[in-house]
Amino acid sequence: MVNETQHTCSVSSSSKSDGGSSSGSESSKDSSRCSTPVLDADRHERLREKMRRRQDSGDKWFSLEFFPPRTANAAVNLISRFDRMGAGGPLFIDVTWHPAGDPGSDKETSSMIIANTAVNYCGLETILHMTCCNQTKDDITGHLQKAKRLGLKNIMALRGDPVGEEWEEEIDGFNYAVDLVKHIRNEFDDYFDICVAGYPKGHPEAESYEADLRYLKEKVFAGADFIITQLFFRSETFLKFMKDCQAIGITCPIIPGIFPIQGYHSLRQLVKLSKLEVPQEIKDVIEPIKDNDAAIRNYGVEQAVSVCRELLDSGMVHGLHFYTLNREVATTEVLKRLGLWTEDPRRPLPWAVSAHPKRRVEDVRPIFWASRPKSYIYRTQEWDDFPNGRWGNSSSPAFGELKDYYLFYLKSKSPREELLKMWGEELTGEESVFEVFTCYITGEPNKNGHKVTCMPWNDDPLATETNLLKEQLEKVNRRGILTINSQPNINGKPSTDPIVGWGPSGGYVFQKAYLEFFTSSEIVTALLKVLKKYELRVNYHIVNVKGQNITNAPDLQPNAVTWGIFPGREIIQPTVVDPVSFLSWKDEAFALWIEQWAKLYEEESPSRMIIQYIHDNYYLVNLVDNDFPLDNCLWQVVDDTFELLN
Amino acid sequence: MVNETQHTCSVSSSSKSDGGSSSGSESSKDSSRCSTPVLDADRHERLREKMRRRQDSGDKWFSLEFFPPRTANAAVNLISRFDRMGAGGPLFIDVTWHPAGDPGSDKETSSMIIANTAVNYCGLETILHMTCCNQTKDDITGHLQKAKRLGLKNIMALRGDPVGEEWEEEIDGFNYAVDLVKHIRNEFDDYFDICVAGYPKGHPEAESYEADLRYLKEKVFAGADFIITQLFFRSETFLKFMKDCQAIGITCPIIPGIFPIQGYHSLRQLVKLSKLEVPQEIKDVIEPIKDNDAAIRNYGVEQAVSVCRELLDSGMVHGLHFYTLNREVATTEVLKRLGLWTEDPRRPLPWAVSAHPKRRVEDVRPIFWASRPKSYIYRTQEWDDFPNGRWGNSSSPAFGELKDYYLFYLKSKSPREELLKMWGEELTGEESVFEVFTCYITGEPNKNGHKVTCMPWNDDPLATETNLLKEQLEKVNRRGILTINSQPNINGKPSTDPIVGWGPSGGYVFQKAYLEFFTSSEIVTALLKVLKKYELRVNYHIVNVKGQNITNAPDLQPNAVTWGIFPGREIIQPTVVDPVSFLSWKDEAFALWIEQWAKLYEEESPSRMIIQYIHDNYYLVNLVDNDFPLDNCLWQVVDDTFELLN
Repeated sequence: MVNETQHTCSVSSSSKSDGGSSSGSESSKDSSRCSTPVLDADRHERLREKMRRRQDSGDKWFSLEFFPPRTANAAVNLISRFDRMGAGGPLFIDVTWHPAGDPGSDKETSSMIIANTAVNYCGLETILHMTCCNQTKDDITGHLQKAKRLGLKNIMALRGDPVGEEWEEEIDGFNYAVDLVKHIRNEFDDYFDICVAGYPKGHPEAESYEADLRYLKEKVFAGADFIITQLFFRSETFLKFMKDCQAIGITCPIIPGIFPIQGYHSLRQLVKLSKLEVPQEIKDVIEPIKDNDAAIRNYGVEQAVSVCRELLDSGMVHGLHFYTLNREVATTEVLKRLGLWTEDPRRPLPWAVSAHPKRRVEDVRPIFWASRPKSYIYRTQEWDDFPNGRWGNSSSPAFGELKDYYLFYLKSKSPREELLKMWGEELTGEESVFEVFTCYITGEPNKNGHKVTCMPWNDDPLATETNLLKEQLEKVNRRGILTINSQPNINGKPSTDPIVGWGPSGGYVFQKAYLEFFTSSEIVTALLKVLKKYELRVNYHIVNVKGQNITNAPDLQPNAVTWGIFPGREIIQPTVVDPVSFLSWKDEAFALWIEQWAKLYEEESPSRMIIQYIHDNYYLVNLVDNDFPLDNCLWQVVDDTFELLN
Repeated sequence: MVNETQHTCSVSSSSKSDGGSSSGSESSKDSSRCSTPVLDADRHERLREKMRRRQDSGDKWFSLEFFPPRTANAAVNLISRFDRMGAGGPLFIDVTWHPAGDPGSDKETSSMIIANTAVNYCGLETILHMTCCNQTKDDITGHLQKAKRLGLKNIMALRGDPVGEEWEEEIDGFNYAVDLVKHIRNEFDDYFDICVAGYPKGHPEAESYEADLRYLKEKVFAGADFIITQLFFRSETFLKFMKDCQAIGITCPIIPGIFPIQGYHSLRQLVKLSKLEVPQEIKDVIEPIKDNDAAIRNYGVEQAVSVCRELLDSGMVHGLHFYTLNREVATTEVLKRLGLWTEDPRRPLPWAVSAHPKRRVEDVRPIFWASRPKSYIYRTQEWDDFPNGRWGNSSSPAFGELKDYYLFYLKSKSPREELLKMWGEELTGEESVFEVFTCYITGEPNKNGHKVTCMPWNDDPLATETNLLKEQLEKVNRRGILTINSQPNINGKPSTDPIVGWGPSGGYVFQKAYLEFFTSSEIVTALLKVLKKYELRVNYHIVNVKGQNITNAPDLQPNAVTWGIFPGREIIQPTVVDPVSFLSWKDEAFALWIEQWAKLYEEESPSRMIIQYIHDNYYLVNLVDNDFPLDNCLWQVVDDTFELLN
């Protein structure tokens, strides 16, 4: 968002507020209403509505700007950063448009694909930047159609930097951001929320500060919903700009762009690009410490915090937009000191939701992908409808095949060398595999002194909730019940419980105990004998890689294993054990042995053959204890099985 | 099913068994499955499948035959009898076809309408008899189409008695029951289950017993699914007949028709019609006591029990069909002595289900019609889809207007005089109305010594469950909170609980406390002040007859107030408080003041004006306490309201 010319005019704040209440109204047969319980109003609102609601409620907010990375590895890192910084609760993030980087392509480093990942896989409300200069109408329409298809709902409409020395207006072409705004409204009606850029010091190419304000007004009147400003160094600069905008009738939200100084060189470069002048008082501090990165960063944090405080204290500012430069530390620090970083452990649903509009109603998923939500989203991306209320209603939608283990949002964050250290440079038998599983559960280092912080089925350390089961899990993994997913039973804890809670406050959450593991056919034979005693209480599915499947589930019905009861709402049952999708999960779960683990080793090597043997011969088992108010009986089932084997 | 000629041939048992399990089968992506949790397999099976399942499981069953009544009042009584005898658990009932009584018409006494009521309003699996003799193909097709439209799924195909002295076969006409069987299969494919009549002694008009057996085989081969026999007096008669049928290749179920002798004259008349001979040993007993009705009935019960025992002990008989002659006592007594009368207090859902095939998936209803299920079914009879899983999914279907208070399945079982005795010959003020409500709750007689056993909103005495709340209900009704519906909160009782349980065993049921009442605007004003204190805990809807509506329900969402958790299934939430349908219920609830109560009195009479005043000025209020694990706070809300008023 650096260096851009634009035109202006006057403003219509088109914020539309929805979700009427019938309070005091007359009886009406055709009152409209949501077809799904609104657990999380955010999922059903447009960005401009969210801003409006935050402004009305007085809750201050922030947003984060990123640029697309240059390499695939950097993309993997950026996605992890989205997950980490997303946890702080930004209202949205935005991804800049790099005309030189093939921004609309399917490359994993393109602006389009990074924004797609943020929305679909990280569940972040996202604005995709788009520039129009030097592009044909068809190109632009194509980009916008693709963005819409991918579930992007917000565009930052920019002119972009002209290519070549002498820039001339093209007749009927896209010469200014306002042309792009008009084009989006003409072609896509009200589908997108549109953001435009504001220049607190005036655009460097504008005739005057006043002319630039008129250009901004023109952009807003053409259909922009809100404004994000270029960076500035003093709060007075922004506040004056804001008053000047209001004076000429611009009433839409204007969000200050905050730039925490993070280094001497990045500052100089940015200033050069944006043709801004650094105020003398800042130069005076920075020049003497220009070789001390830490000192500059500390100063940058202090300076940004103080500007932000002044803005918020003015009462005119409701949200702050941060130019992160794809870095985490300084921005997070500023946000924490401002008290805006709200790492809310509460979740709208027990799993991470996607922000794609067609998934807005989604409120049920099979438990199997609990640790691989990105894979689940990937394998269901072609679905037109998502289960809403109950799983059974969606009949049996086909899951996409998972062959693209190389895709950056599906691949392990850890490089091969690190995985080998965790999972063993050389395996000596099935027991070495048991050992890896056990170390992952306990958090103890393996015999080579390395902690096992991820597994092929779970790229993250153990969930807090799973810690509740740690002792038992350790015991069974040591003996070859290789657990990959589990949850304890919960009989009505408050929805605000820091570990197992989810959904709005005032509710109660419940779970049936669940245990999923790989194990040998010898153990399965004993297990099946034991399960006869638990026939009425425990539901099981046992399947091998060939799909031989043993179950006592009635009529292929799904079993709800997580549900919540909330004030004034229907029951929410976000997690089910579904016999049909278990067979799709089975393919993925078995393939991960080979794709993620066996392939670390040379072909024909003993280590690889051990994993291959497990893949070919073990069973994948899941167990549900239906009697959630009683003590979890699944550990007893496993104990009985080991006893039978002895 | 008396006196009928027919032809025969050989047999194909077309029982199809559904509901596959994937146990042991290969993985399959397009496995079919139910779109709704199967709580009650009966609701999803055809009659022939139910018979097959009972035969396989060894559970003996019974069925009941009724004839259409002659008067509208008798129809009201017959419907109550359906409800009472339905409680004993018949596999089906059947309704005979009376050619002289305009059997296919819309009259409330027609065979068609009685069968319709049994299916739709009483939830009974029903066979409609149909005769074909002296009728055109078009007439018959018309009857069958109407039966299908009304949700009838089973036809007993009969010839019927020819009209006139000399009967001759018509070419291309319907001369025999087999013609009707063929016609049904030709025109309606496999839609109907078809039953035909068997004659253990041979049809009186048949050339011989053997010829009659061949006719029967012909009927079965033409597509009949099972056989019900004419009455007989000795078990040997039936068992011989059954063996003879099997010997010639009839393998479908053959159900013995049992006739408990209930009186001397009815026996003589039946014997004359059916051209049967009463065995000498029975005559010997009966003749001496022919004027002693009680003695004959006692003998009839003894005799029927002994025949039934012999049949069941033979191992060849799985179900017994009773010719009830529309009487209750003798048949019920026989069934109880046989141990077949299984008044199972367990319910598949908390409300009475309808047996119409399009309502098979229905598993959610608004709580408002809890005491008026027939009205609910009537007002939703035009719906094409029924809420399955959650109420929200059905958007806001329009409820039919309820203007037909005269319809026999909607009208009170008690005559006007009795209602006046219960509800007061003369009302002296609102307090006399409070008194009526209070007496209904307490079961104490009113000041004129009459018990109040029904109310306009509830034609039956108080539900057992409501008794849990009796003390509090009495207190509030006395003071003008006129309750018409309520339920206590339940935090996870076993689904087999005799009072609040429902659904399959092994589950847990839950409820939020609910209270619905009429009350004055003065009390509403105080209540609204009190409710402010309970804003986060209690949801309310308050509406007057004009539709002025005050609520704190978020976004018009339904609130689940009854739900159940069962092994291996999704969550079932059969009852909701739905803000939209509450406004349809409001119209009905207010209208009942006038239609059922005010109209008992002369126009312009003081009593009528008192009810009219309440109708015009009171509010209908419902309250839900969302905090189901805590003590019900609704009584505290009401106490606080009274306190505020003092």
